[in-house]
Formats: sequence, structure tokens, C-alpha cells
Amino acid sequence: MIAVTYAGGDRLRIEAHGHVLFTDQPVEDGGEDTAPTPTELFLASLSACVAFYAERFLHRHKLSTEALKVSCAYGWAENPHRVGEVDLTVEAPGITAANPPEVRIRVASGQPVDALVERRS
Amino acid sequence: MIAVTYAGGDRLRIEAHGHVLFTDQPVEDGGEDTAPTPTELFLASLSACVAFYAERFLHRHKLSTEALKVSCAYGWAENPHRVGEVDLTVEAPGITAANPPEVRIRVASGQPVDALVERRS
Repeated sequence: MIAVTYAGGDRLRIEAHGHVLFTDQPVEDGGEDTAPTPTELFLASLSACVAFYAERFLHRHKLSTEALKVSCAYGWAENPHRVGEVDLTVEAPGITAANPPEVRIRVASGQPVDALVERRS
Repeated sequence: MIAVTYAGGDRLRIEAHGHVLFTDQPVEDGGEDTAPTPTELFLASLSACVAFYAERFLHRHKLSTEALKVSCAYGWAENPHRVGEVDLTVEAPGITAANPPEVRIRVASGQPVDALVERRS
């Protein structure tokens, strides 16, 4: 169970099995920018889901997770106003020339969303 | 741009325009339960999105946001393992018998997800 309660201004308090987080709106949209927006939380959850699968994959294959990074760029669409484009990039320096290419493909394709693995050696 | 980096164990550090949050996994799944899971973050974002629209609606109609609450129950589905059911409940005590029924309907139907407005007077 997730519970969201009103916390003044545009701030919302979210509780999830004892963990508390907040959302807010940017100043230009009438908020106070004290926390990410609900939309950023959505994109954060997608990105963290991909990063979690990548992390577990790297651990399972005894590859370094040290500099694992998932970046999420996004764009808006209108009518209705919504996120219209999501571009996720997985950087996994633990995957080097010593690893077969299929390792990289499996990191990317194991996710519920498209992901692009950038190889850094 | 959202950026997720590895923070040890199953912990992930998420940064969104200067705001930082974390995800983790429950102890029974191998994590340390220091933060919500990526899945909980996803459900939190849905719930917060509904709560934000409700909050702005209530403000616009000069109704109280004081005890606004959005609860999100959910269930799992398998093959693949995923969230299979989401049940969002909006409690808006600011909406009373003095408000016409269409106000309650508009609070519920203005969201991108199904929402049930519970009337408390």
C-alpha cells in the first residue's frame, strides 16, 4: 500500500512501507521545487528498474557495478500533455572487450523498456 | 535528465534536477530495505500524479485540501513478474454534501488512471 497525503503548497508526502518521500512542482509551475515532480518520479522508477536489473546481471556475472549509470532523457507531447519520449542509456564500464557482445545485449534486452548499452573500455 | 548511479548492495542513487532519492530492495529479496523499491517508486508516481491533480482541482474550487489522501493498493501478476493490478482511492473530505456530485466525478475522471472518490461528509 502506498499512501499520499497533502503537505502544503504543491507538496505531497508519499509513504511506502515505512519509507517517506515527497514530490513538489517547479517554481515556474507554482510550486517551491523542494522535491522531484510526480513525472520525474515516474521516470526515476523506470530508470531505477533498468539499473536494478543491470546491477543484478553484473553481480551474477561477477562484473563490476562500480561505475554503472543509467541516464534518462525525455521529451513532452501534447493533447493531452504527457511524456512523449523516453531515452534510456545504460553505461556499464564493467562490461569490457573481455566480455562477449551477447553479455551487453542481454543487459539491454532484459528490461521492460528499450535500453541502449554504451560500451566504455 | 534523470541519472541513476550504483550506491552499493542493491541501493541506487537517483538524481532529478538537483533532488536526490534512493531505491533499495526488501531484506527478503537480498537488499537492505533502506528505501522504496523501483516498483514502489512507480506506484508512488502514479499516486502522486492523481493527488496533484486532485489538489489543484480542490484549490481551484476553493475546497479544502487539508485531509486529501490518495491510497494505492496493488497486486502482482506473473510471466513476466509485474504489477498486475492497481487500485487508487482518493479521499477528499473537502468535497461535502454542499458540493454538487459532478465536482466529485471531475476529481476522479480528470486523472489518467481510474480513481475512486470516497465521499466523507
